This record gives sequence, C-alpha cells and structure tokens, in this order.
Amino acid sequence: MTLPVVRTVPDLRAAIAAWRAQGLTVGMVPTMGALHEGHLSLVRLVKREADRCVASLFVNPKQFAAHEDLDKYPRDEAGDAAKLAGAGCDLLWAPATAVMYPPDFATSVTVSGVSEGLETAIRPHFFGGVATVVTKLLLQALPDVAAFGEKDYQQLLVIRKLAADLDIPVRVIAGATAREADGTAMSSRNAYLSAAERVIAGRLNGLLFAAAKAIGDGASVSPTLSALRADLAAAGFDAVEYAALCDAHTLAEITTLDQEARLLAAVRVGATRLIDNVAVRVDGM
Amino acid sequence: MTLPVVRTVPDLRAAIAAWRAQGLTVGMVPTMGALHEGHLSLVRLVKREADRCVASLFVNPKQFAAHEDLDKYPRDEAGDAAKLAGAGCDLLWAPATAVMYPPDFATSVTVSGVSEGLETAIRPHFFGGVATVVTKLLLQALPDVAAFGEKDYQQLLVIRKLAADLDIPVRVIAGATAREADGTAMSSRNAYLSAAERVIAGRLNGLLFAAAKAIGDGASVSPTLSALRADLAAAGFDAVEYAALCDAHTLAEITTLDQEARLLAAVRVGATRLIDNVAVRVDGM
Repeated sequence: MTLPVVRTVPDLRAAIAAWRAQGLTVGMVPTMGALHEGHLSLVRLVKREADRCVASLFVNPKQFAAHEDLDKYPRDEAGDAAKLAGAGCDLLWAPATAVMYPPDFATSVTVSGVSEGLETAIRPHFFGGVATVVTKLLLQALPDVAAFGEKDYQQLLVIRKLAADLDIPVRVIAGATAREADGTAMSSRNAYLSAAERVIAGRLNGLLFAAAKAIGDGASVSPTLSALRADLAAAGFDAVEYAALCDAHTLAEITTLDQEARLLAAVRVGATRLIDNVAVRVDGM
Repeated sequence: MTLPVVRTVPDLRAAIAAWRAQGLTVGMVPTMGALHEGHLSLVRLVKREADRCVASLFVNPKQFAAHEDLDKYPRDEAGDAAKLAGAGCDLLWAPATAVMYPPDFATSVTVSGVSEGLETAIRPHFFGGVATVVTKLLLQALPDVAAFGEKDYQQLLVIRKLAADLDIPVRVIAGATAREADGTAMSSRNAYLSAAERVIAGRLNGLLFAAAKAIGDGASVSPTLSALRADLAAAGFDAVEYAALCDAHTLAEITTLDQEARLLAAVRVGATRLIDNVAVRVDGM
C-alpha cells in the first residue's frame, strides 16, 4: 500500500474534512522523519484512540541552532512513508519549509515553566521552535488526539502545556519510550553513533534505571545523582550535560522524593547528544 | 430578548457545536466590553458573513501594564449584553479571568514585524497580551470568521499575522472605524474625557484626515507630519506620542508615498490616550 501524501494545508484539510464527513475521528503523530519503532508505536497508539492517523514529516529548522545538525539530519521520505503505512498510518503530511514558514513568518509561541532548565540550559532555542511548529501542526490538522513520545519528556510536557494554555482542542497522549534489546532509547540520532560509541550509549539506560530504583527505594537524592554522573563518565560518555530528579509534572528539580518524579539525563558520546528519562517509583503512588 | 451567556470553554463549544450540527456558520467579535457603535457595527458585519455571531467580553489583564487602567476600565456586562442582542448577536462568551488564565498559565504568543514600533514603543507589553488572548479566543470558539475594527489598526494587522502564521482556520475581517458626529473615533476610553477634553479630542480626526489628504495630493511626507504634530499640540493635546505614515500592510514607516499607506497617530489629552488612523489615498490604488 502506498501512503497518500499531502503537501499543502488546503489539501491536508480537505483529506481530514472527508474523514470528518464520514463521522471518523482523527489522530496525529508529528515527526521529523528518520522513523524508528518509537514513532511507529505512536501511530499504533493513535490508531487505538482514533479512526484515522495522519503523521507529519517536517524537519523543523526553528528547533535547530546554527551549529546543530539540521543539514545532516537523516532524511528518507519514501522509507518513512513505507514504515508509516505498515504501522496503519492513513496519511502523510509532508510540507516544504516554505509552506510552514513563508518569508514573512513572524509569530512564535513560547512556554515558560516546564520549558526552563534541562534541555533549555543546553539548547536555549529549542522549545520555542518546538512550541511554534507543534502549534501550527495541531492547528493545521485539528486532530482529536495527538501522540508524543515520553523519550522527549520535557518536550511532552511543553506540548501538553501549550495545548492546554492556548485552548487547542486536542487530547495529547504519551507513548512509552521504545527501546532496543539492550534498553537503549530509540532515537533518530542513534544513527550517528560509531560501533564503539553505540556500546557506550547502551550503558545510559541501565545506569538511569538503577539510579531511579535506588532513589525509589529510599536512597538520598543528591549522592545518588552524583554517583550516577560519575558512573556515566566512567562508562565512557564524553560529557554529562545534566542528570536531574524532577517533579514529573512541573519539572522543577527536587532533592527529596515526596511527589511523582522523573529522572532525566542528557549525555554526549563523541559528537552525538543522547537523552533519556525514567519514572521514579514512589511508594503508594 | 435576553442574550444567552456562557462562562466555560465546554459550554461555549457545546453551543457552537449545536450550531455546527445544524450546518450553520459562526462568526466572532472579541471585545473588552464597554461597548459602543464600533463594536455593534462589527456584530452586524459578522452577521452578514456568518449565520451566528458570538461576542466575547473579557477585559484582558495581560494587555495592561501595572500603571495602566485595568482596574478602572469600564465594566457593564448587562448593558453590553443588551446592546449586543439588539445588534443581532446570538451568544455572549464572558469567561472569568481564572478561566482564561489558570494560576499555572505559562504560554505566550508573540508577533514580530507589524507589532514593532507605534503602539509598542509606548506600550511594550501590549501586543504580547493581545496576541495571546486573541489566539485563545479564536481557538476556544473556532469561528469561520472574526471581525476586528480598523480603529486599532496595528492590532488588526497583528491579529491577521498571527492567524495566518499559526494556521488558525479563521477568516479575519476588518470593520471601518465608527465615528461620532464630529468624526471622533469611538473608543471605550472616550468615557474618561471631561467635557473640555472631549472638545480637544474632537480635533484629532480632522487634523489626521487633512494631513492624509495633503500627502495623498502630493505634499512631502516629513514636513506634513511635522505640521500635523504642531497642529495637534496647538489644538490642546498634551502629548503627541506618534504621528507616522506607514506601509498599510507591513507598518514599516515610509517617507515617500509609493505604496498603499496608512497615517496613524496616538495622542494624550489629560490622562487619556487616544489613537486614530486613516487610509492615505494613492493615485491609481
């Protein structure tokens, strides 16, 4: 089966209006392509919640800084379309950059609070770009439901916040992080890793899960995070950008475990940034 | 006839969904209340373009600075509702501040370009507040058409820009400035004027129209604007905040008339700010 592709907002809206006219519900999975099982699991999740699924494929220049990997970001629309069709996706929304951002484009959406710290400390431009493009994608398609992965946990919370604050009529749902056999979080950027770097990358999730379990079992937070950082360095990561325990909803950093919490980390191996995060189990929660 | 009022987003959406289920189109007129003929003319304009009209009444704290007139801004919901019903409005959307901005509200919409200069030079917080609240109002109601007055010309362009840039599925239409018998632009803030100030305020529109005609007839721009500022001061205005000729679409200030243009001014009389603007007629345009 070949996945239908639309490249203009009127064509996208016409396809969705045709579904609406049949009384069908619509879900959306925004992506930047380079699709892996994580994205496909979101398509399957959406298809359990809605009758039809539209996936977007747009490598958003506004969320890359000048020195980042926009130009080398992996692109394979035909391969992505085949994967999406296989997962049950019904439509691919693949606009050109000039469609999303005409030359006189002048509007931006920003979210404070959950967008502060963590990724923003390293990539200050990032969530402004994400918030603006996701607002556009949601308003172009006006889906009933849209799915985002927990892998990008801070991004998930930023998107939940902007959708609620701007009254975008969509239900944002989260998909669990898809992982390789060794537990490594799937990421389009894993393709950048050499074989040796991939071995190092494989240590991140185990160290994170172990630290989360220790904290959940009652270990003190600060010493556990210090040990985690040391263990990551010892495992061969070239930098630990952050390793933080945060309130699972506000992302405020916390030093004692008396609320639902998330352990988040960002590391570098060679030239590649990797992020991952895990829930911290709290007794009785 | 009593105008139906809704105070929550679900109630608003239920009322609009009931219209949609009957195949009716929907228009919107956002207001801050203190309604005058300018607002009512927008309701009548909307009713020519759509089957039903919802007017919002929300005095938006985000577009007032701390020193401005939020607390004394005139409020009379019952009187406003009666006026709206008389003009053919079908529904009043009057949310409390806590409905629009819950305590953890964290998102803002900003527009560069058209929002720069003019009002922003005097009220730097203003268009951020306007852009955020109008985005919310449009997404709460998702009308087919929404009407804004040319009286707030820069605001009209900011709203056109954000609606286009964020792909809000609405057609933004403009209503001509409603004027008193002496030509004064109607404004809720005219209620602040003493009798003596009202006489001075009445001079603004005539001087603006005369300067616009002179420029349209070929007078040099800079000397004409200088003379306008001097005439406004001589007429008794306490300050001329700006008097500028601008491209009618980008609002870039211009010094020669070779494109569609708008003459805009802001003045103060006593403690009250007044703004007005007029089209400049260009031969052959």
